[in-house]
Amino acid sequence: MAIRDSKSPNTYWYQSGVTREDRENMNRHRGIIVWFTGLSASGKSTIAHAVEKELHDKGVRTIVLDGDNVRYGLCGDLGFTDCDRSENLRRIGHVAKLFLEAGVVVLTAFISPFEEDRSRARRMLDRPEDWLEVYCSCPIEVCVSRDQKGLYRRALNGEIPYFTGVNSPYEPPQNPDVTVDTSKLSVSESVKRIIEAFEKRAFFF
Amino acid sequence: MAIRDSKSPNTYWYQSGVTREDRENMNRHRGIIVWFTGLSASGKSTIAHAVEKELHDKGVRTIVLDGDNVRYGLCGDLGFTDCDRSENLRRIGHVAKLFLEAGVVVLTAFISPFEEDRSRARRMLDRPEDWLEVYCSCPIEVCVSRDQKGLYRRALNGEIPYFTGVNSPYEPPQNPDVTVDTSKLSVSESVKRIIEAFEKRAFFF
Repeated sequence: MAIRDSKSPNTYWYQSGVTREDRENMNRHRGIIVWFTGLSASGKSTIAHAVEKELHDKGVRTIVLDGDNVRYGLCGDLGFTDCDRSENLRRIGHVAKLFLEAGVVVLTAFISPFEEDRSRARRMLDRPEDWLEVYCSCPIEVCVSRDQKGLYRRALNGEIPYFTGVNSPYEPPQNPDVTVDTSKLSVSESVKRIIEAFEKRAFFF
Repeated sequence: MAIRDSKSPNTYWYQSGVTREDRENMNRHRGIIVWFTGLSASGKSTIAHAVEKELHDKGVRTIVLDGDNVRYGLCGDLGFTDCDRSENLRRIGHVAKLFLEAGVVVLTAFISPFEEDRSRARRMLDRPEDWLEVYCSCPIEVCVSRDQKGLYRRALNGEIPYFTGVNSPYEPPQNPDVTVDTSKLSVSESVKRIIEAFEKRAFFF
């Protein structure tokens, strides 16, 4: 995988007069990246949107960057080879960081199967507390039985190359901040655990 | 130029429970994309950051997407050929749209020399009033005389390929919403004109 994460030649950094701290003070809460990882149909998008709704109702500025949604636009040129997945997550990491700088709570819901890609996104951040990793742990049999989009069926029929868990690997996170086993917890129980993890970080001013 | 602006295969749109309108109501102002265009050293970044400061002081949620800054991250893999410039602006357009969906005022400060690239970014938006095009008009002789970064000197020496105005074309916008001739107007006068254009669109709730 030859993912270039450098800067273009002949470019210079322009420091904004409005800082992240200024924006967070206006919002009265911190920005943070909540990075969901897990198999397809493990509940990432559903839980991310449910967390967003609860945070929004508390007056928090939020955005969900969703695997499917982003692939309609920013990453619509990419497929699902290992290299394209890495480039997809490289771009997502940078976009998430821009939202973080804007003082927003960014919820990213991507399979993000490779530790290397997740840790690269994490390493870009200035502060460890800017990153909350949520592992949607769910046995693949349960994911296959859900299969809302019929993707597992097609992957198992050999119709989709590079489908995580079928013909492309998934590397579980080693030290996630929160693990939710979505075969056992309800959506609202999962949301509760994630919100508790937020609040431990003195999230609101 | 073969810029693919499609969607990845096997992806499905997930509608968020929190809408752009919800976010704008929380912010008490609309989101909008303010797209600056003009030659290098025409004042785009300076004016964009000055507009941002003034809006922030009024309680507006803002972000500046700056040619130089974005090229440190999201588009750090791209150079300045016509094709790379188009891909750069394709990605920026999508990121700007994500911020717009988050109810944020996005100020983009890129040379964006080609009408085709600007109009593609504009066409992605649902509503014409989401787009405010600001043309930083400035004679190239004035830009060359500023040359804060020494780039014109190097381009004129043949050291930088594809440098807009020297060895790569600039297509002025046909119908910008605001034109500021930065060889005649001060930064604060330029800012004033842009803020006036905002307010004409019933920007605040």
